[in-house]
Amino acid sequence: MKTLPLGRAFTLIEPGPLVLVTTNDGRKDNVMTISWTMVTGFSASFAITTGPWNHSYAALQETRECVIAVPTVDMIDIAIGVGTCSGRDTDKFDKFGLTPVKARHVRAPLISQCLANIECRVVDIIDRHSIVMLEGIAAYFDSSRKEKRTIHAVGDGTFIVDGRRLDRKDMMRDKLPGGL
Amino acid sequence: MKTLPLGRAFTLIEPGPLVLVTTNDGRKDNVMTISWTMVTGFSASFAITTGPWNHSYAALQETRECVIAVPTVDMIDIAIGVGTCSGRDTDKFDKFGLTPVKARHVRAPLISQCLANIECRVVDIIDRHSIVMLEGIAAYFDSSRKEKRTIHAVGDGTFIVDGRRLDRKDMMRDKLPGGL
Repeated sequence: MKTLPLGRAFTLIEPGPLVLVTTNDGRKDNVMTISWTMVTGFSASFAITTGPWNHSYAALQETRECVIAVPTVDMIDIAIGVGTCSGRDTDKFDKFGLTPVKARHVRAPLISQCLANIECRVVDIIDRHSIVMLEGIAAYFDSSRKEKRTIHAVGDGTFIVDGRRLDRKDMMRDKLPGGL
Repeated sequence: MKTLPLGRAFTLIEPGPLVLVTTNDGRKDNVMTISWTMVTGFSASFAITTGPWNHSYAALQETRECVIAVPTVDMIDIAIGVGTCSGRDTDKFDKFGLTPVKARHVRAPLISQCLANIECRVVDIIDRHSIVMLEGIAAYFDSSRKEKRTIHAVGDGTFIVDGRRLDRKDMMRDKLPGGL
């Protein structure tokens, strides 16, 4: 997994992939599946919707750290499995064969199997909307991975796989931040 | 365009499509392209990131109403065109051949050409993060439309088109809200 310039991290989340969010509460690693995410700025700012109904939320609140990991289509059943059991009674890394990798700045682990990982700090929690604001502080991308297609939850139990990619860089030139 | 039950509206936004957001400031219609969106609840709650840098923002702030319209891949150049000029000096409905359709509850128009439309009220504005919270109050879906593939902005000037759809309803059964 190679370092990805932080200025590119938002491009991992902007297309709306299903993501895994890892935490470590000081005793053990945990991971949850999140589909409700949003980019809020080019300098690696993100919002996710979560709350006390997720076991990971307590760790997120206390440690104010997490990792956003981006799985690909070959990991769909792992992502759904992670999202349909709880860290309360399950060691999800063990159950789903996920390999935790030590992060650089946070105690929450990167996930070795994922296409990309973003180390994040919690910068704000907007309780009334169950929104947690994150700032990306380091990003990684596994360019050696063959399968790079991510998945998009529809919310009704179906998932859309990435199809082909259209290039409109010329039309967008004036709107893109430097370096993209 | 047929009415879509409001309880299904979140499934239009959860996969992360590029959307058009219409407003009407009391004098004229306007429309902007937004990629930074998030579902925040099953009962049609959404967040979008926008601010004074978008001409539409003033109308959104004053009228506290908008329509989220979902374009498909055949509309990609329209969506990019809408996103790279300003309502300040351009009648975008006219310029891009978009047909405004009277909404039921809000003054902002639906877009006839789009796959789906969601009438929304602004329920909160979180200034410090440039997040506008929306409540969907009516939704429409054009099931007669042949092209139903939406597009996902990557943020670097490329766009991912919807690929195939995987069904995991059986695995997800316990997590889905009623009626899905």
